Amino acid sequence: MNKYQHGGDVVGFAASLGCSVDEIIDLSSNINHIKPKINIDFNSLDISPYPSYEQLYQNIANHYDISPSNLSIYNGASSSIFALFAKLDLDKCFVYTPAYLEYKRVCDIHNIEYIPIDRFHNIDKEITKNSIVVFVNPSTPDGKHYNLEHLMQTWEEKNATIIIDESFLEFCTQPSSIDKINSYDKLYIIKSMTKFYGAAGIRIGCIISNQHNIKALKNIAPAWQLSSFDIAYIQDALLDKDLKHKTLQSLKQNRTKLIEILQNSSYVEHIYPSDANFLLVRLNITANKFQEILKAHKILIRDCSNFDGLDSYHIRIAIKDMDWQLLKT
Amino acid sequence: MNKYQHGGDVVGFAASLGCSVDEIIDLSSNINHIKPKINIDFNSLDISPYPSYEQLYQNIANHYDISPSNLSIYNGASSSIFALFAKLDLDKCFVYTPAYLEYKRVCDIHNIEYIPIDRFHNIDKEITKNSIVVFVNPSTPDGKHYNLEHLMQTWEEKNATIIIDESFLEFCTQPSSIDKINSYDKLYIIKSMTKFYGAAGIRIGCIISNQHNIKALKNIAPAWQLSSFDIAYIQDALLDKDLKHKTLQSLKQNRTKLIEILQNSSYVEHIYPSDANFLLVRLNITANKFQEILKAHKILIRDCSNFDGLDSYHIRIAIKDMDWQLLKT
Repeated sequence: MNKYQHGGDVVGFAASLGCSVDEIIDLSSNINHIKPKINIDFNSLDISPYPSYEQLYQNIANHYDISPSNLSIYNGASSSIFALFAKLDLDKCFVYTPAYLEYKRVCDIHNIEYIPIDRFHNIDKEITKNSIVVFVNPSTPDGKHYNLEHLMQTWEEKNATIIIDESFLEFCTQPSSIDKINSYDKLYIIKSMTKFYGAAGIRIGCIISNQHNIKALKNIAPAWQLSSFDIAYIQDALLDKDLKHKTLQSLKQNRTKLIEILQNSSYVEHIYPSDANFLLVRLNITANKFQEILKAHKILIRDCSNFDGLDSYHIRIAIKDMDWQLLKT
Repeated sequence: MNKYQHGGDVVGFAASLGCSVDEIIDLSSNINHIKPKINIDFNSLDISPYPSYEQLYQNIANHYDISPSNLSIYNGASSSIFALFAKLDLDKCFVYTPAYLEYKRVCDIHNIEYIPIDRFHNIDKEITKNSIVVFVNPSTPDGKHYNLEHLMQTWEEKNATIIIDESFLEFCTQPSSIDKINSYDKLYIIKSMTKFYGAAGIRIGCIISNQHNIKALKNIAPAWQLSSFDIAYIQDALLDKDLKHKTLQSLKQNRTKLIEILQNSSYVEHIYPSDANFLLVRLNITANKFQEILKAHKILIRDCSNFDGLDSYHIRIAIKDMDWQLLKT
């Protein structure tokens, strides 16, 4: 598995089974299984001119109840992270792990010391002054949502530059940290617009911060980053006001069913608590071996051995609407 | 006009005329007016999974007759330029001007000294050692294609990092500089995949260089940059093998007609020689005044006053297939 790879390699997995990608039940990536209602005819979209971003800024700002001047939009959350780190001139970054691998990667690129803090065993570990802090909330690969009130206070006392990655927040009922952007001037919120809206093939993500920070970020960004197709998709998806309710309801039902199946599996040692659309599981066999067993049903899961603090006995399973009996082991 | 703006503001122009954007004849942007045959049903495209880039790399590499390992693809030419400058650790950049405004902007961002060299009057000006050289070929906003043999030699003697921006090369019959990437190790070619393929709303551009340079560039790039829609569009567009012939034929005819009209205009002082899909014109009235006159026909042209070395008397006109009599002035 590639050191920084997202999800599983569906194409390679299908090839190894000699079947088509369509036949794979992909539980390795965290994309919403409920799709927004899309009423656009993409075939008749005018893609000739340079895209206009104004309406998109307004719509996303409305969605998060902020001003467009608090928003900088990029071609995906990973591009947002890269853009933000290109601006931060600091030499230490504390990341509450396990977490996305992008943060480790972007620290390596900018020669920033990457210091993992184990959320599971050592969450109160002190950080040093004037450093970067990254907290993914809800976290990945486990999906737990944390109340950050207390931690936020300790970070602020250390004058930290705080990055809260809320790429999966819309799968939860818990509140965002957005309301703090105007009370702490070194706070940045990262949002992915594509995971909840069911399309990893769409590249739209954003950074939310105070106007001053956003202006500085926009000053160093290329002029044209987003595809007209993607803009049209997201604008239409944002209009689907039932999506959240439908998603949360389906997740609740399927999470319960999946947990029940896993609790009865002879291979499962521990199921981590999750508020999001995926579950982290510790097995008593390796992820590889478990994956071999699931090949019979063409089910692909996520091997979590490349996450800090996890090992080859950890897997992540996306919560979708499916026959969970297939996971009976 | 915004300091770094591309093309004209079609939306604002339509608003000022109280008409819809569709009614505007946009001669301000340089997108191919001949569209490739597209056989994809974008409505049925599976945008759920993360996009796979392998086939796109192979297809673009085939198109330019290079190996995929000589290629790094970004979400547009402007993102390619930004990605390249993030890697270059040099303090001086010589740009043959007039040229795109992105290069000036990216130099400002990275605190690189931007030194314009006037192509029209002083093309043989010497550069200093170990600097960056940018040459847009064919150039913009005039469209002249230069034979770079001699200049390339002088740059190599100065150990320059050479960037040849060929974003408009496909509108010409002249050869690319790609064949030199393996004979000079500091040569980068920038390509825009969307201008010739008629879609500025599609964000795909690339850097072509030797394998070593490309590997270094990929090491610092975010994992997911391109939209599945855009990938599908470009892959299909690349299959249209008649597009080049049709485009060149139409350009030839329309260029002749446009030049004839301009030569007879009382406002035109000079028409710059062009090999590409646009013409640079010096007027004896300001671009603003000329634009006012063309408002009667809802024609938008490009005011070139924000290009280095040009002034408010310069305009750029895109060559399209239209009734050029409308430009009779």
